[in-house]
Parts: sequence; C-alpha cells; structure tokens
Amino acid sequence: MSHATASSLPRLFTFVGADHGPWAVRSVRTLMGDALPPAPCLQVVAGGAVPPPGAAWALAGITSNERYVERHEKVALVGAQAGLGRAEATRAALIPIRKSPAWWALTQDERRAVFETQSHHIAIGMRYLPAVARRLHHCRDLGPAEPFDFLTWFDFAPEHEPAFDDMLRALRNSPEWSFVDREVDIRLVRDQARPSQGGESGPDLAITV
Amino acid sequence: MSHATASSLPRLFTFVGADHGPWAVRSVRTLMGDALPPAPCLQVVAGGAVPPPGAAWALAGITSNERYVERHEKVALVGAQAGLGRAEATRAALIPIRKSPAWWALTQDERRAVFETQSHHIAIGMRYLPAVARRLHHCRDLGPAEPFDFLTWFDFAPEHEPAFDDMLRALRNSPEWSFVDREVDIRLVRDQARPSQGGESGPDLAITV
Repeated sequence: MSHATASSLPRLFTFVGADHGPWAVRSVRTLMGDALPPAPCLQVVAGGAVPPPGAAWALAGITSNERYVERHEKVALVGAQAGLGRAEATRAALIPIRKSPAWWALTQDERRAVFETQSHHIAIGMRYLPAVARRLHHCRDLGPAEPFDFLTWFDFAPEHEPAFDDMLRALRNSPEWSFVDREVDIRLVRDQARPSQGGESGPDLAITV
Repeated sequence: MSHATASSLPRLFTFVGADHGPWAVRSVRTLMGDALPPAPCLQVVAGGAVPPPGAAWALAGITSNERYVERHEKVALVGAQAGLGRAEATRAALIPIRKSPAWWALTQDERRAVFETQSHHIAIGMRYLPAVARRLHHCRDLGPAEPFDFLTWFDFAPEHEPAFDDMLRALRNSPEWSFVDREVDIRLVRDQARPSQGGESGPDLAITV
C-alpha cells in the first residue's frame, strides 16, 4: 500500500455531540432541513475520531485550499483576522451547512458571482474581524454520503455575540443562502470549571479546543 | 448518528492494483516523485473498497464539482465529450497526480490563471474530444494523508493513443506542470478474454469498467 507523509498541521477535525466535553451547548437552532439529535456538550477532536459510546452525533470536516478568495481579499483577511482559542473567546458556534444540488451544478464563475458579487460573503465577514475568529471545514469530498457540505467553527468573546448574530443575519439574507438546504446553528460556552488547554487525561487527550 | 442519503450516481471510486482484474497493465511510467509498487492488473471499484488480499496498492478518489471550468467552457465540453466505457475504448490510462504545497497556497484567481490563461488546460483537452473520454477524481479532501491529489481515468480506442500522448506532452510542457510534484502514468488494455460488463461473480461484482 502507498502512503504519503501527512502535513504537520492537522486538517481533519471531528465535532462530537456527547454527554461531556469542554463546550456546553447553550442552544441549537435548526434553520433548514433536518435537526441533529440533542447533545448537552461538544468535543472538537483533531483527526477522524471514532465517536465515543453514547455520542449523539459526530461530524467530520477537513480544512482545504480556498475556493473563492482572490489574492487581494486574502491579503486583507490575513491582515485582519485573529486565531481561534483566545482566552477571552469563551463563546463558540458550530454551523453545519449543506448546499443544494443546484449550487453544485454551477460552474466556478457562477458560484463566485453568487458568493461575492451578489452576496458579498467575504466583505460581510471582513466587517466582523478580528472579533469573530473562524475555521472552515469541508465535508462534501470526504465521502459520498456526508450529511453536510461545510462545518464552520467560530469563537468570540461574549460581548461580540450580538455582532456575530448581525453577521449571520446579513449572510442569511443574501442570494447565496437560497442555495442552502440544511443549516443548524449550535451555540456553545466553554466550560469554565475545566482548563482550556493541557492537563487532561483519558479520552479527552485529543481534544483541541 | 446522523446520515444523509447518498446520491444515486456513484462519486467514490477505488482503483486497485492487483494480480487479477479486467484491465491488464501494459506500462507504468513514474514521471515525478515516488513510484507505485508493481501490479499486473487493475480493478476499478465503485465505492471505498477494502483492497483484496494481495493488492499491491489501492487509490481512492471522488468526483466533485468543477473547480476552474466556466459556463462557456462547460457548454463546449459537454457538447463534445464522450462517456467512458465505449466498446472500442479498449485502452485506458490512470494518471495519479499530486500538486505541490505552492499550488495549494495559491488563491482561486491565481490557480485559474495558471490552469487556463497560462497553460490552456481546458483548451488543450478540448482538442482530443471525443476520442479521449475521462473522469476526474479528487483525493486531497478525502483525508489528511492521501498520497495523490487527483486520479484521472481515461479511455480511448488503440488508434487514438498517439493523440492521447500528444495531449499529455502539451499539458506536461505547460506552466501548470511546474506545480506537479508526483505523477505516475499507468497504461492499460482491457482483458479481451473477459466480458467488459456484467456476468461476473465473487469479488469482482462491484467492478464498474
């Protein structure tokens, strides 16, 4: 069998809805399509984890190359954005999204036109940097039967949650969202009773945030 | 656990180098990077197959949305191309390719510029339609440690193999190929002693071509 060396930075992450974990679920709102089974806590695991017994759900996604961002936009984003895991970012959101077959049948120029020219997806997101940090994970090409196409993980300080809601309102009112056929918005708070980094043992060792 | 319904058309395929199978390996040429272990035959299996005992290698890839093609190009391609599996297409090629980290760090506009404006990838391919049929499979986002980024499967009649070689020569001389850091060119001939479709049993049941 042939194997390549893996990159040193993890690309694959699994989000697990479970009965314990460092993030407590504050709310789950199903905006479109089927709901997820309820779970009180969330774990973010680096790699393609086998869900622990009793997990309500597990969603995997992989970071990848950019699909729409152009160089001038990338320079602006990199200059403005913050990394995940800041001490003050005790709130988070996981937003799994699936887009319709009509979206995936569009050609690259058509998707870019909807995404930015019509919907200003990048420009809207820019307004909320660096308060909102994010990491986009792709699911659609992990396999032929993934329940979502994208998982986006956001974190922010509690005082920035209203701004985060403004951002989502603008995106959800854009033409791009007419192609969204499943969306769940999971809001989380970091468990203050537990350390946010290190010092853990057992099944949580691989948890990254 | 949450599961989606799969599309009715298969998207995931596994190419298996083995000691039997409907395609006999005529030649293997490693153009860049590591070679694959030798195998006398090839099987093309729909799905993420577990390789049979004794398989030399197994490479999986998934069909996906187009990354560079624009609408006017798509219309031209669809109008000219033939499907895989024509009775006269008794020759085939599997060409696994990996691109460099420098490629994946480019933004969308930069990759499109190299791919088509500078390298004429789509325009070159168009010249060989419908003689050469193809299916592109993506590997990079199947997981974090795939040995290749793309697997392209081609089939054609024996008399069109020189044209196929011309096409590859043009592509390999283009600026895009400076980003290719692993490439293997496997040429195959369909085993004439076996039926090309149906009527098989046992472990070959899922073989598609």
